[in-house]
Amino acid sequence: MTTIIDSGFFRKNWSVPALEKVFSDEGRIQSWLDVEAALARVQGRLGVIPADAAQEIDAHCKVEKIDLQLFKETLAKTGHMIMPVLKCVQAACPGKLGEFVHFGATTQDIMDTGEILQIRQASRYILKETLRLEKAILDKAKKFQYTVMAGRTHGQQGLPITMGFKFATWAAELRRDIERIKAFPDRVFVLMLFGAVGTKAGYGSRAAETVEGVARELGLKQLPICWATSRDVLAEYLTTLGILAGTIGRIANEVIACSTSEVGELREPMSSTTVGSSTMPHKRNPASCETIVAQCRIVQSYAYLGMQTQISEHERDPRMWRIDLVDIPNASMLAARAVTATADVVEGLEIDERNIERNLNLLGGLLLSEAVMLVLGKRIGKNTAHHLLHELALDQSDDKTFIERLHDCKQVTDVLTHEEIDAIFDYSKYLGSATEDVDAVVEYCTRLAQTDPVPEEF
Amino acid sequence: MTTIIDSGFFRKNWSVPALEKVFSDEGRIQSWLDVEAALARVQGRLGVIPADAAQEIDAHCKVEKIDLQLFKETLAKTGHMIMPVLKCVQAACPGKLGEFVHFGATTQDIMDTGEILQIRQASRYILKETLRLEKAILDKAKKFQYTVMAGRTHGQQGLPITMGFKFATWAAELRRDIERIKAFPDRVFVLMLFGAVGTKAGYGSRAAETVEGVARELGLKQLPICWATSRDVLAEYLTTLGILAGTIGRIANEVIACSTSEVGELREPMSSTTVGSSTMPHKRNPASCETIVAQCRIVQSYAYLGMQTQISEHERDPRMWRIDLVDIPNASMLAARAVTATADVVEGLEIDERNIERNLNLLGGLLLSEAVMLVLGKRIGKNTAHHLLHELALDQSDDKTFIERLHDCKQVTDVLTHEEIDAIFDYSKYLGSATEDVDAVVEYCTRLAQTDPVPEEF
Amino acid sequence: MTTIIDSGFFRKNWSVPALEKVFSDEGRIQSWLDVEAALARVQGRLGVIPADAAQEIDAHCKVEKIDLQLFKETLAKTGHMIMPVLKCVQAACPGKLGEFVHFGATTQDIMDTGEILQIRQASRYILKETLRLEKAILDKAKKFQYTVMAGRTHGQQGLPITMGFKFATWAAELRRDIERIKAFPDRVFVLMLFGAVGTKAGYGSRAAETVEGVARELGLKQLPICWATSRDVLAEYLTTLGILAGTIGRIANEVIACSTSEVGELREPMSSTTVGSSTMPHKRNPASCETIVAQCRIVQSYAYLGMQTQISEHERDPRMWRIDLVDIPNASMLAARAVTATADVVEGLEIDERNIERNLNLLGGLLLSEAVMLVLGKRIGKNTAHHLLHELALDQSDDKTFIERLHDCKQVTDVLTHEEIDAIFDYSKYLGSATEDVDAVVEYCTRLAQTDPVPEEF
Amino acid sequence: MTTIIDSGFFRKNWSVPALEKVFSDEGRIQSWLDVEAALARVQGRLGVIPADAAQEIDAHCKVEKIDLQLFKETLAKTGHMIMPVLKCVQAACPGKLGEFVHFGATTQDIMDTGEILQIRQASRYILKETLRLEKAILDKAKKFQYTVMAGRTHGQQGLPITMGFKFATWAAELRRDIERIKAFPDRVFVLMLFGAVGTKAGYGSRAAETVEGVARELGLKQLPICWATSRDVLAEYLTTLGILAGTIGRIANEVIACSTSEVGELREPMSSTTVGSSTMPHKRNPASCETIVAQCRIVQSYAYLGMQTQISEHERDPRMWRIDLVDIPNASMLAARAVTATADVVEGLEIDERNIERNLNLLGGLLLSEAVMLVLGKRIGKNTAHHLLHELALDQSDDKTFIERLHDCKQVTDVLTHEEIDAIFDYSKYLGSATEDVDAVVEYCTRLAQTDPVPEEF
Repeated sequence: MTTIIDSGFFRKNWSVPALEKVFSDEGRIQSWLDVEAALARVQGRLGVIPADAAQEIDAHCKVEKIDLQLFKETLAKTGHMIMPVLKCVQAACPGKLGEFVHFGATTQDIMDTGEILQIRQASRYILKETLRLEKAILDKAKKFQYTVMAGRTHGQQGLPITMGFKFATWAAELRRDIERIKAFPDRVFVLMLFGAVGTKAGYGSRAAETVEGVARELGLKQLPICWATSRDVLAEYLTTLGILAGTIGRIANEVIACSTSEVGELREPMSSTTVGSSTMPHKRNPASCETIVAQCRIVQSYAYLGMQTQISEHERDPRMWRIDLVDIPNASMLAARAVTATADVVEGLEIDERNIERNLNLLGGLLLSEAVMLVLGKRIGKNTAHHLLHELALDQSDDKTFIERLHDCKQVTDVLTHEEIDAIFDYSKYLGSATEDVDAVVEYCTRLAQTDPVPEEF
Repeated sequence: MTTIIDSGFFRKNWSVPALEKVFSDEGRIQSWLDVEAALARVQGRLGVIPADAAQEIDAHCKVEKIDLQLFKETLAKTGHMIMPVLKCVQAACPGKLGEFVHFGATTQDIMDTGEILQIRQASRYILKETLRLEKAILDKAKKFQYTVMAGRTHGQQGLPITMGFKFATWAAELRRDIERIKAFPDRVFVLMLFGAVGTKAGYGSRAAETVEGVARELGLKQLPICWATSRDVLAEYLTTLGILAGTIGRIANEVIACSTSEVGELREPMSSTTVGSSTMPHKRNPASCETIVAQCRIVQSYAYLGMQTQISEHERDPRMWRIDLVDIPNASMLAARAVTATADVVEGLEIDERNIERNLNLLGGLLLSEAVMLVLGKRIGKNTAHHLLHELALDQSDDKTFIERLHDCKQVTDVLTHEEIDAIFDYSKYLGSATEDVDAVVEYCTRLAQTDPVPEEF
Repeated sequence: MTTIIDSGFFRKNWSVPALEKVFSDEGRIQSWLDVEAALARVQGRLGVIPADAAQEIDAHCKVEKIDLQLFKETLAKTGHMIMPVLKCVQAACPGKLGEFVHFGATTQDIMDTGEILQIRQASRYILKETLRLEKAILDKAKKFQYTVMAGRTHGQQGLPITMGFKFATWAAELRRDIERIKAFPDRVFVLMLFGAVGTKAGYGSRAAETVEGVARELGLKQLPICWATSRDVLAEYLTTLGILAGTIGRIANEVIACSTSEVGELREPMSSTTVGSSTMPHKRNPASCETIVAQCRIVQSYAYLGMQTQISEHERDPRMWRIDLVDIPNASMLAARAVTATADVVEGLEIDERNIERNLNLLGGLLLSEAVMLVLGKRIGKNTAHHLLHELALDQSDDKTFIERLHDCKQVTDVLTHEEIDAIFDYSKYLGSATEDVDAVVEYCTRLAQTDPVPEEF
Repeated sequence: MTTIIDSGFFRKNWSVPALEKVFSDEGRIQSWLDVEAALARVQGRLGVIPADAAQEIDAHCKVEKIDLQLFKETLAKTGHMIMPVLKCVQAACPGKLGEFVHFGATTQDIMDTGEILQIRQASRYILKETLRLEKAILDKAKKFQYTVMAGRTHGQQGLPITMGFKFATWAAELRRDIERIKAFPDRVFVLMLFGAVGTKAGYGSRAAETVEGVARELGLKQLPICWATSRDVLAEYLTTLGILAGTIGRIANEVIACSTSEVGELREPMSSTTVGSSTMPHKRNPASCETIVAQCRIVQSYAYLGMQTQISEHERDPRMWRIDLVDIPNASMLAARAVTATADVVEGLEIDERNIERNLNLLGGLLLSEAVMLVLGKRIGKNTAHHLLHELALDQSDDKTFIERLHDCKQVTDVLTHEEIDAIFDYSKYLGSATEDVDAVVEYCTRLAQTDPVPEEF
């Protein structure tokens, strides 16, 4: 319990219960036992091992049926992660029947396939929560489709958008993450069962049928050749989580940016008993979002580690795959937690329309300088207009607002009346496609969900 | 010329001529001009800007037609990357017609779309070379399909494989990289043309048709909403290169591992005039492969930067996208160079069958300990056999080989005759599916190439 | 010119002239020639090579004296980076005297030592500019020592600080960076001159004197044994730049955070001709700071690569040190550029005292909730007070300000009069040590500069 | 227990008992309590809080005395990490005395200082074990000072070295790591006690004495100003671990490289019951070293995260410091484990002198091509000799060894007799300074240990 993910006190914000079991010691060992059991069943059917051995092995490949004390002792004695599994299954089975467990298999067959089974469970959870998040965002996008607010670039107010438009950019990006996850069955949910150096030699003459049978039993795809040092399989999983973390991290970061004291347009939901600061009683900190951003950055660092492990040597290289003992569970857990927390945040997000309105008017009309430029540009040329307005906008010689300066500028009033000038300053008239884009994103998400439904492997 | 990629002397090993133009200053500016020209053509057709302005702008959006001195001066004066382009086009066009360039557009529209055009050219090159590499590997895999060699795990000889099998694992992994690249048209080759804050407001009432027209002109897909801060688009490009770099890096690293003095099974091709060492005349260093590995690791670090840039703020965040001014060209160039160099290496790879043979026999039979275990296991139980052979194998009390120890061991000879023991030690009999797997990989690569051909965008 | 660092147009913001020569092709080759020349001089003095050979070699080890065409041809022929240097020096020297160049040396001796010479020049520049930045910050810190502003945590206003206090935190951190740089002479500015495998065998019986002599000639320290695969030397350089980049990046990021439309307290300096946006004439973007942040993040990624290269094999491993051909020049250049740009920004930084004042009062008194809590806490207990004020602060049932709520709250007015309440709300009375801390930082920086002056190696 | 570091079964190879308590939930909470207790003691002495309150708080700031169930409930209710600590201490103290805990402090004061206390304990452990490793290496270096072996560059045999020389390069690098760690007291073991926004306002008029007193109580240094967003403090800690991990990782990687079946010169120690492979009974895998390399790469990735957290905003930025909840404990634990395991490996390292001898002669004399070149070069010019020997060395037209080719080559025999040629091929005569360098490194390590002893803070 030295890691925050496993902390007895603090893990609530760093893990999700649904995956705690999957990645627990028991979950890990069970994932290995699942592979051993499937192998035994298939080998029993094919006559590679005796039918009664297969039956006994299958029946005893349950983490609750094995002697975890014996597991520990064997582990201490051998220093090997899979030998204790074999020892325990053998001990649990009557007579020598247990000796047929792991027949022809090698350690990495069991560990990698077990890991893939864990990855599949994590992927299912993450996809489910990502879809929940997508729905929450789309709901908010529709609800605030017409709520005009200041759009900002470089931290500066630029032009008006709508709050729904901002949300819709989240949804469109997230939908692409969903599409990337949907590609897992073919290249990530794959069986590793290739024996010691990848040739399946240990599986004997029925190797092909054995491997095919186990793939079917476990619902995994087969790759045409051993991938023990082709870790692109895991790198694709991890970088996909890394890109998802980029999206989630952006959303959470945006909530923070919009909930500063000075902006104050968004607030993450907060229970009445939540305490912001131990010393400043007024503080209402975006703590959930901050934790999410932190987690997303960590997930991305694991994604990079995942790519690094690809540069492996010969037919197997534990200098590299042992990194996966850290990056796979940790990245899975933190990504799962981050997406769940983000879905909660978006579902309960508070929008402060009063501050939105206040900020819109903060710059005294500068927010529509482009609109003025386009109107003016038609009369005096766009770049001439740009130049003139640039000067008016940055003029700090007195306290006049931008609108007042326009009224006072001869070059402007030569070609525009005061009424024409004032008519430009209706924010809702200069939204471009902001509101239509919300519908376009809803359509985009819906269409991709329909034309390419979530594969049954999920 | 402070970077090795641009070095007048050394860039030969760090860049590829085909992309030098694409990413050069002229190539970069031309990519922007291509976007401005397409925009002007479409706006001219739609009547958004005068037809003669459109025609003139289109005609002058050529890097060789603009005044690069004026470009430099405007850049120095404004400190802005796109203003000089506009100034130069305006200066090149007669009268005030040039003022209609960039109508309604924002800087990032031009820079991001221009970058996507560069990315598409890089992707085309990289895909072409990756396919060349795949072919070279498959050729070698078939040629050495039956060349038996030692398979190694943990740096230790484990069981026999064939050289073709080793090559085939490269091809299968590379094929998955190809599949990932083939997904670019939908999510990477996409238009950015959304105006100042992403609402297309500047494009006026014909915005939708404008954007659709420019997408068609440039052969890019449209996303449903602005992606100015949805940098998953670029992160997917970069992580795909990063995973490809993982594969390429593994291949080059494997050639190095197999060409050490002690292994000596592979040698990268070397011209007769190449010098290995300035002081050790006998050195024949795997210099190409070393450079490839170095480049691949750098590409992966850029892929991580690409993910980091996703966590952007508001409607545009140059703290992040300016990172792409480094990571996109550099990662593209180094990945391109690495894949080209790897294809050259594999095409000219020398296989030393004499050393392969020598190494096979290095361990005096230990290479087939699993085979012995399986035969013996049928008589005395697999785990009992494992235990016994483990002891025999690690026994260092005298100089006997493993085969000799088997002959001398009563527990073994109780159940196996000397002839039965000797019969096990035919390496070509314990290859499992190694040779069939080569065919399976050829079929896998061929099938994916046929059922899902390279999209026309490439 | 495919990289932005070397761009003929855009490098102004991505490199510094002072280092362009150092890291140029000519600079790189000259750094190698400097090592060869020093070696020849020392070997000539020691009688290891003929005195006239030494003299000729020394005289011709100038990049402007060698035949760069011959350099290119030899490079093309040999594919070796140092052989062309030797060939050119030989060609330049009369007769066979040039054959004594590089006597006993190995490629990495020359390349690594040359790189260290470049690193030393970069370090000198970076240290100089970091000191300029420190001075600029301290000046600003003293100037705005008493300018009260809102302090912010979690993006939320927390308690008052002064602008000078904020600046002083920058200076203190930067001073520690300076201290880390000052440690370079012992562990970074070190000679590599150990021959082929590090034993100096090629240098013959006078090896020890040779190495000592060259170290003296070049002003570099000697390490007790070859560091060809001990890349901690370079990792220390790169991580020190990485941590410096963290400081610089924080400063630039802070300027951006304080110059948003809604905060508006700081503005980076901007010339009258600078253009913020190609389409929004009013935009005044913190473009310099954005570029700095981008550069700092890239520098940190190179620092990580630098650590990765440490895991090298045997007596030399070019898979790793070739990464330094990218990370060293690029990280040096970007760090140099970032620190220079940051010094310029801080020197010209504009402080908007009007907005500072406006923001202080934004929350209607909440900014002093801690102060109220401490006063109130003395009467009713600190945690009781925290609880009560937390409720008052977050109450949104009406439009009252925090001060008004205090006046209206019986629990408060039971123990505090209205006058006592109002007396709390003088921001300048609740600054803690903010103003003294500015002086403490000035003293800290001054003291460290005096007790431990910049080593003469700089 | 979802992380391998905390696994009930597998953590033996991923953590060290000595730090499990430090970083456990209880250890973490105790570190916070230690800070609260020290603060109360000092504030009691200064009369800032009542003396009896200080005494009670001090007495109850023990993790075993607080109600962990109440802790959990308060955590669940408030979602705040420090509020439960305060609540529990208050509950433990009689009456309202507990309300004086945390007087004037802010959350990050406690959490950061607590973390520094944990870091100091981790640093002490890591330094102790690094010194043990250094001793083990120096012992081995002296023991095998004269054991001649092949030196290798580019994976190719280059020239002879001695095994002691190889070990000595490890020690020299490690000593520099030790020197970097020794710098922690000034810049890493520092107090955070600056209140809400860093001005110590909450600590009242006695703030300066309070902070100084707590620093003395805890044995930490004071920095001149709050470092809540100056995370260079932690970045220095983490990058120092990262560079150390680079050294450790190189050592472990080197053992692996030297223990391949084909090289076979080193073997990590292995108990008689250790199992290498579940299916290949002969396998003796370098499993400890593989795990070490994996751990070191992970530590380096945390070091990069540490640098990234520096780019923080305003007076505190939990998006960043929450990353430290993962990177600090995990990097500390993995670095501690890696250095301990490496010390164990080096202490028990097996050197196979038979294989060392075999490999020396593997290339039929090529290993001394430089020696031949230098002798020959004196007669016919160095570069001419290089060219000639390069051709002889790479000649594969027949099976002759290099020595035989020299005997047969007229250009050689014109200037050297067969006896002179043969005299060159005594490996122990061409060791350069290899054996002296061992002594130089012993002297270097000893001198630095003496002139600059381990600071008392350790």
